[in-house]
Amino acid sequence: MINRIFLVIVSLLLMSGCVSHTKQNRSPKMIPEDTHAAVTTVAPAMAAYAERFIEKSLWNRPELSRRDRSLVTMAALISRNDTVELPHYLNVALDSGVTPTEIAETITHLAFYAGWSNATSAALVARNVFAQRHIDTASVPGEKVDFLPLDKEAENKRATMVESNFGKVSPGVVKYTTDALFLDLWLRPDLAPRDRSLVTVSALVTAGQVAQVPYHLNRAMDNGLTQEQASEVLTQLAFVAGWPNIFSALPVFKEVFAGRNPA
Amino acid sequence: MINRIFLVIVSLLLMSGCVSHTKQNRSPKMIPEDTHAAVTTVAPAMAAYAERFIEKSLWNRPELSRRDRSLVTMAALISRNDTVELPHYLNVALDSGVTPTEIAETITHLAFYAGWSNATSAALVARNVFAQRHIDTASVPGEKVDFLPLDKEAENKRATMVESNFGKVSPGVVKYTTDALFLDLWLRPDLAPRDRSLVTVSALVTAGQVAQVPYHLNRAMDNGLTQEQASEVLTQLAFVAGWPNIFSALPVFKEVFAGRNPA
Amino acid sequence: MINRIFLVIVSLLLMSGCVSHTKQNRSPKMIPEDTHAAVTTVAPAMAAYAERFIEKSLWNRPELSRRDRSLVTMAALISRNDTVELPHYLNVALDSGVTPTEIAETITHLAFYAGWSNATSAALVARNVFAQRHIDTASVPGEKVDFLPLDKEAENKRATMVESNFGKVSPGVVKYTTDALFLDLWLRPDLAPRDRSLVTVSALVTAGQVAQVPYHLNRAMDNGLTQEQASEVLTQLAFVAGWPNIFSALPVFKEVFAGRNPA
Repeated sequence: MINRIFLVIVSLLLMSGCVSHTKQNRSPKMIPEDTHAAVTTVAPAMAAYAERFIEKSLWNRPELSRRDRSLVTMAALISRNDTVELPHYLNVALDSGVTPTEIAETITHLAFYAGWSNATSAALVARNVFAQRHIDTASVPGEKVDFLPLDKEAENKRATMVESNFGKVSPGVVKYTTDALFLDLWLRPDLAPRDRSLVTVSALVTAGQVAQVPYHLNRAMDNGLTQEQASEVLTQLAFVAGWPNIFSALPVFKEVFAGRNPA
Repeated sequence: MINRIFLVIVSLLLMSGCVSHTKQNRSPKMIPEDTHAAVTTVAPAMAAYAERFIEKSLWNRPELSRRDRSLVTMAALISRNDTVELPHYLNVALDSGVTPTEIAETITHLAFYAGWSNATSAALVARNVFAQRHIDTASVPGEKVDFLPLDKEAENKRATMVESNFGKVSPGVVKYTTDALFLDLWLRPDLAPRDRSLVTVSALVTAGQVAQVPYHLNRAMDNGLTQEQASEVLTQLAFVAGWPNIFSALPVFKEVFAGRNPA
Repeated sequence: MINRIFLVIVSLLLMSGCVSHTKQNRSPKMIPEDTHAAVTTVAPAMAAYAERFIEKSLWNRPELSRRDRSLVTMAALISRNDTVELPHYLNVALDSGVTPTEIAETITHLAFYAGWSNATSAALVARNVFAQRHIDTASVPGEKVDFLPLDKEAENKRATMVESNFGKVSPGVVKYTTDALFLDLWLRPDLAPRDRSLVTVSALVTAGQVAQVPYHLNRAMDNGLTQEQASEVLTQLAFVAGWPNIFSALPVFKEVFAGRNPA
């Protein structure tokens, strides 16, 4: 009888996708077992493409480090509110040198740039991954940190432009943009400004919000992202966010690059 | 042995996210316990921002009532197909004076404006929330209602414009737009026209569909949404849909406001 | 005691949505029981609209076959990363003559065109649906297939255009676009080029990626999609992706149609 109960439970869980979800969250492997099995079973060509183009090719290209690829992929998955592949790529990120604190800062950052509920779902996934890896979160910084120095001139320029464009259209948006984002979030020290811009640009491209790319891509490159790296961010994102988002971003990247390399 | 089975079950459920999901659906609190715990654990700065900027500041701003903020947030979450924060905000909506019938009408409305499957998922969540609050759905109106009077002149103008633009491009779209939307859905009386437009505009901004904003924002303002309220809708949405969507909507709102306030 | 354990388990599962999810995956009916019950309970007008406009009207329109409507709907749901209605529509697809291999090819195709994780989630859903229908996946083709003949002239033209536009912006994107997509994926024989384009266009409209529509809609029509069918694709998508995406696509379809029908 007890065995029968157990069988019923396990089969209910299996059918409901709960166990497979568990497995994904647990496995630190490159491809979670159960998901890999599903793809291999119903779409074997897709599994072969993943191995040939993503694992054996894309992730080994020298134009971008595995650490940067992890940040880009993580940002894209959070921006898509994906929780199926996120556990796996959080593990890849941790294996590639992204710290738990950097993951926490990325999630917090994307609450503002990819939607609060996306970040909430990411936090639920990250808690599982951290627990499985016995990561102590006690050192993850809270609200109070020593801010990076503010570049007052650049911030004044930004604030003045936004105020003059939109101050009367939505005073609330303008206020929180200054108070919450540029005088607070962006000054937090535990994700480097270059990386903060990297995850922002990745989220923008993934969400198809190309109108916001020029400001943030220029900011990223001012903070040290090279053109070769920026270019490779699009290559990485093609395999996460899909080709159409990348082809819509290409002309915008092209224009930003041209603007920085006057003939 | 029985205890061991029980432990195995509970831990499986915990790991699979099923129990946490249950907790979220159950809790009528401002922040569901388990989600709050996850965010506080892995991204404590994000939890602090939520308290400082969202709960203690945003929701208390006088430019928009808590009832309106609930409608806006609900529409944005349905538009994002988010089921993690939706249970919570459906409870906030009910606590802020949104009726179960208005929730039903919002879900039905967004089946057309945010995608049918998003509305289906929202209905699954709403059923749980209603059950937990012992809300009797017997009085929620079905198909047959006494329609609001049709503004024939405005509808003729709309229908003529759409027919002349797209009648030959997609006769089916044009037909259902008239039959299902403007001669039916929009005439249902249990969500005020101003609120129907409010949730439509919120869904459009959230989905990045700014090209459709001018028509619907003008319609919202014709139906009583003030410019101050419209402006604050963007402030509310910044914290739900993320900053990029709002910055892409700002110039469109600016133009609509300018068009209604000729110099 | 054993009975109590069992009750606790079942009620936990019920509350967590796991059992209902199971039911959806199981049911080959037009509307999954539990989802249908939820919609009927909390949004009865939406349920009535679904019956009146979608089931009894839309799906019976002669402009597009039920098979094509299934492909379009499946592509849209995968593009939205929807797993609630996907099980049902995979069943509809199989009932309408779409083969398991065509579903596999669609999922693989959309890994590139709608995001890899969306395709992964679709594979998880498809595995369940296939298992419930006792579909043997042994014959689903893997990586090695006999490619369709390449139209070298068209491919050279495409490659030259992309290289000259974006070769320096992102060499990686350009390389994989050629190697993985146009010299591989698009040449796979088990989804007809016309159908491959049909699911691509459906995914583009659903994701609001209208900038990529002209190339792919022209390609679809070059491969046999008639203007009447293309027009009706938008009608079908209105009820899946929501009206705003369709109204943003209408002017683009109009221009493509005009370009193919010079006055």
